[in-house]
Amino acid sequence: MDIATVLGIFIAFAALFGPIIAQGTLELYIDALSILIVFVGAFAATLASYTLSDMINLFSVTKNAFFTKPVDESRIIDSMVDLGEKARREGILALEREMGRIDDPFMKKAVQLAVDGNEPEVIENVMANEIDNLVERHKTGKSMYDALASYGPAYGMAATVIGLIAMLEALDDPANLGAGMALALITTFYGSLLANAIAIPLSTKLERRSKIEVNIKNMILFGVLSIHSGDNPRVTRDKLETFVAPKFRKGNN
Amino acid sequence: MDIATVLGIFIAFAALFGPIIAQGTLELYIDALSILIVFVGAFAATLASYTLSDMINLFSVTKNAFFTKPVDESRIIDSMVDLGEKARREGILALEREMGRIDDPFMKKAVQLAVDGNEPEVIENVMANEIDNLVERHKTGKSMYDALASYGPAYGMAATVIGLIAMLEALDDPANLGAGMALALITTFYGSLLANAIAIPLSTKLERRSKIEVNIKNMILFGVLSIHSGDNPRVTRDKLETFVAPKFRKGNN
Amino acid sequence: MDIATVLGIFIAFAALFGPIIAQGTLELYIDALSILIVFVGAFAATLASYTLSDMINLFSVTKNAFFTKPVDESRIIDSMVDLGEKARREGILALEREMGRIDDPFMKKAVQLAVDGNEPEVIENVMANEIDNLVERHKTGKSMYDALASYGPAYGMAATVIGLIAMLEALDDPANLGAGMALALITTFYGSLLANAIAIPLSTKLERRSKIEVNIKNMILFGVLSIHSGDNPRVTRDKLETFVAPKFRKGNN
Amino acid sequence: MDIATVLGIFIAFAALFGPIIAQGTLELYIDALSILIVFVGAFAATLASYTLSDMINLFSVTKNAFFTKPVDESRIIDSMVDLGEKARREGILALEREMGRIDDPFMKKAVQLAVDGNEPEVIENVMANEIDNLVERHKTGKSMYDALASYGPAYGMAATVIGLIAMLEALDDPANLGAGMALALITTFYGSLLANAIAIPLSTKLERRSKIEVNIKNMILFGVLSIHSGDNPRVTRDKLETFVAPKFRKGNN
Amino acid sequence: MDIATVLGIFIAFAALFGPIIAQGTLELYIDALSILIVFVGAFAATLASYTLSDMINLFSVTKNAFFTKPVDESRIIDSMVDLGEKARREGILALEREMGRIDDPFMKKAVQLAVDGNEPEVIENVMANEIDNLVERHKTGKSMYDALASYGPAYGMAATVIGLIAMLEALDDPANLGAGMALALITTFYGSLLANAIAIPLSTKLERRSKIEVNIKNMILFGVLSIHSGDNPRVTRDKLETFVAPKFRKGNN
Repeated sequence: MDIATVLGIFIAFAALFGPIIAQGTLELYIDALSILIVFVGAFAATLASYTLSDMINLFSVTKNAFFTKPVDESRIIDSMVDLGEKARREGILALEREMGRIDDPFMKKAVQLAVDGNEPEVIENVMANEIDNLVERHKTGKSMYDALASYGPAYGMAATVIGLIAMLEALDDPANLGAGMALALITTFYGSLLANAIAIPLSTKLERRSKIEVNIKNMILFGVLSIHSGDNPRVTRDKLETFVAPKFRKGNN
Repeated sequence: MDIATVLGIFIAFAALFGPIIAQGTLELYIDALSILIVFVGAFAATLASYTLSDMINLFSVTKNAFFTKPVDESRIIDSMVDLGEKARREGILALEREMGRIDDPFMKKAVQLAVDGNEPEVIENVMANEIDNLVERHKTGKSMYDALASYGPAYGMAATVIGLIAMLEALDDPANLGAGMALALITTFYGSLLANAIAIPLSTKLERRSKIEVNIKNMILFGVLSIHSGDNPRVTRDKLETFVAPKFRKGNN
Repeated sequence: MDIATVLGIFIAFAALFGPIIAQGTLELYIDALSILIVFVGAFAATLASYTLSDMINLFSVTKNAFFTKPVDESRIIDSMVDLGEKARREGILALEREMGRIDDPFMKKAVQLAVDGNEPEVIENVMANEIDNLVERHKTGKSMYDALASYGPAYGMAATVIGLIAMLEALDDPANLGAGMALALITTFYGSLLANAIAIPLSTKLERRSKIEVNIKNMILFGVLSIHSGDNPRVTRDKLETFVAPKFRKGNN
Repeated sequence: MDIATVLGIFIAFAALFGPIIAQGTLELYIDALSILIVFVGAFAATLASYTLSDMINLFSVTKNAFFTKPVDESRIIDSMVDLGEKARREGILALEREMGRIDDPFMKKAVQLAVDGNEPEVIENVMANEIDNLVERHKTGKSMYDALASYGPAYGMAATVIGLIAMLEALDDPANLGAGMALALITTFYGSLLANAIAIPLSTKLERRSKIEVNIKNMILFGVLSIHSGDNPRVTRDKLETFVAPKFRKGNN
Repeated sequence: MDIATVLGIFIAFAALFGPIIAQGTLELYIDALSILIVFVGAFAATLASYTLSDMINLFSVTKNAFFTKPVDESRIIDSMVDLGEKARREGILALEREMGRIDDPFMKKAVQLAVDGNEPEVIENVMANEIDNLVERHKTGKSMYDALASYGPAYGMAATVIGLIAMLEALDDPANLGAGMALALITTFYGSLLANAIAIPLSTKLERRSKIEVNIKNMILFGVLSIHSGDNPRVTRDKLETFVAPKFRKGNN
């Protein structure tokens, strides 16, 4: 589980609502109709902007922002260096026997392409294409939260203008002025909440997760090509460790 | 029909106007002159920004946001793998006899170029150029809705300023103050509506549709080049399936 | 003449000023000093941002937004296919005799380079450089209108703040309050007008015109290179028609 | 001297302050403390954003926005065509004797590299790198003015909020209300002034100057490579004249 | 220590708070709860946007904005030219003996790869990858401050809306009006402070530091490749000095 997402969103809500609850004025800030207008409006506009299947995917995409098992890059590097040593000693075909021990499907596919005797250009081509299309799918998920982050405040503002107009038309009743304007402002607040406590954090998180995943896939591709070209395993390690921060490196530089 | 576009725009309008209608104050929010100013102003500025023929095209482009027959990518992949098997068994020229069974015009053109004995560079060159120019035409449509999305609120705001000036000049008549300001704000509301319930959703939808269409065209081009180079049909499938999400793949990885 | 530019700007002004004139309150919205501040300020800031000769060029650049003779892309393709047939039959040097019938200076230069016996790399290099530098010059014109579009509202807003300060200092005279604030707001209105009814439409139009012109130049370059490489005229047509929308194509795909 | 910068900034200030001075209310708009807050705040934030030596360089960079000797591109082309003729007649080494007559240091360095017998790849590599690094240095200067243009209004706004808070706390003294709010707004005005009359124009001017300078350097590099490859001087002229607008060309196309 | 960061942030705070302290009204601008809402909200949203380990890294990344030992580029160039002379006289393997005297780990790794007999493509590949991944890690740090710079004002504004709603609901008590609105505005002020006096300067500084560091690494890589290709040391110096401003060059051009 990505504790940062859960904790971050929880604390962000707590920072805004904590003082309100402490002052016992929470009911001033809860208006079911206003919530409905802003959230339904923003989600509907997002639906109009994407396709039904994008919308359905959004839920499984969102899981990536909450649940991810951390990947141990050092272990991947170690196992690729092992594969490299094996390939150097016994030839690339020997990796066929190792397939069962590779659990990352991306690495499996790349090694399989190598074992099948494909040229390095083909391996690079296919796997880089795989990465490009993965990035594209990730971008769609991220851009849907960006849409929500933009529609949220927009529908909040539109609803506030609706409320202001109603209030201004009833200006002869000054007793209601304050309450009317307060109610109008609540949708602005909800719009900001949807954007800054939910949609922008999730959009940024999805982008961050995508970068981390793509970095690892690029590293694996780099590694398979290095093995395929018969690099000295030490060189393979050097190449792969450029993908991780210096403190995680085991190589001698 | 793209149900998401229709449903999304309908719900977005409902979210904003539903409560108004329920409260029976709809007439406060309908002002024919204000609608005219904002919508005519924004469309006129868009017309000035583009050409007459862009403007005429806009209607047929807009259809893409409402009507699209979904494309079955798996079926395209299957049929390309079939072509690949045929080409491998009987030679690339044998595809001439298959031309009648290809209904996608883009695939037809690419296969024709291959059958005509063109070099792969020529095929890639011509078809990639075709895609680039398609993207360019799509971008023009999208950018026109972007223009509307920016001119809408701008003309709404300008009209609000016009209304505020009229109201301020008549400040000695406080009875009208509220109504004057309410009227002034209505154009801001219309501008936001044009942008957030119509133009931005359509712009985003057109961009999304363009990406989906271009992805398929790139996949087809990739496939024809793979067939042309004599790839094993299994490799062709591997290459093509990088263009679709893992759950839609039939290949063994 | 580009009727869209003239009509668009005219209607945009009409949408904003029509209702004002109809209500007979035009004099509330005309303030010579305010016009001076906003327009002179925005133009001066644009002058400071560019060079004197950019400023002088702006007028001839602006003509492109108002006057353009439409180019018939089909005719260009036809004439290039003709040249291609001639070159295939009689050799590339035979095009020397056709030079007089080519009136597009860009096509003339490209064909001349081919006739002079230059390598395709040289032709591509020189002509692509020509296009790049044309794009660069177009961009300067466009960016000057972008500058106006940003300085307009900025100087309008700055003048409004000046007016508000004057009004606030005279707050003890409530009779003037409304009129003072109305006057202050007028510059905001002018700034928006300069941006949304003049500068942004012209900037977008110039960009659009540039894209259309560059697309044609790229098509011509593509065509000359195709002719030079001895392509079958049918292939030349196929290549060139990727630059135009499907409905304008004569080729059999 | 770049008269456009001086004149533009002067007129921009005149457009805003002229009417104020004419009305004899200048003292309403001059508040030393407010000037200090906005300008010192914005410069301090810019200092924190860059390095001490960037800050010191800023003054010499700024000179580029005010003082530039115009470069005569036609003369550069002529002199390069001359060099090309000499090199064609007497060999590239003959250019050694021309070195004293070349005063542009960039051209000198490029010709020297050619005379020293370096491969064209080396010349292109070194000189293109020179240009890249020049662009990078230019960008730093420009981005510092962009920072000022963003911090100016930000500190103006922050100071306005400070002023509003002070005013609101003293709301029981309505006599001061107007004056307090007027004073608060002055910093917004200064922030806008710093951005729109100084920082954005200088940023844009520096970018424009950079483009002009880089265009000439690219032209010179293109020319030296053309000479080095033994191009016909007429071809060299054709290549070089793609860098200037058609009206400045002497070649026959 | 990066005196510009410390000094800049200190002066920026002094510019805003100096006048407040001088007027003895500091207590109007300090509200613990408001500080908590804005800072905790913005940090929590940033936490949700990134990962726990990004958040932990942020502190060590921030050090780069405050502490950096300036790098003497001239000395690096001199030492690389020395290495180049040695390699030319005694062969590239002779650099093995120099390894102890190289203290920059990046240069050490590049020279080691050269000494180990790797092809220049491998050296470039590995080291350029190292730079790319360094840039990527730098970007994450910078983007976290960008997130703070955007969440700061957003949470400040959201809290202001919360405060306004509370104030408007209590509109019947005009005595509290001013104080309530003042309190509401304080969070806007804090949000602006977090963005403009802390987060944006640090983000820009980190980006600037990254560029400087990457420029030096690119220079070193360029130098090692030049040495490896057996360039004349004078050419090596020419190549390397393109990375520094002209005034820091020792070469004769």
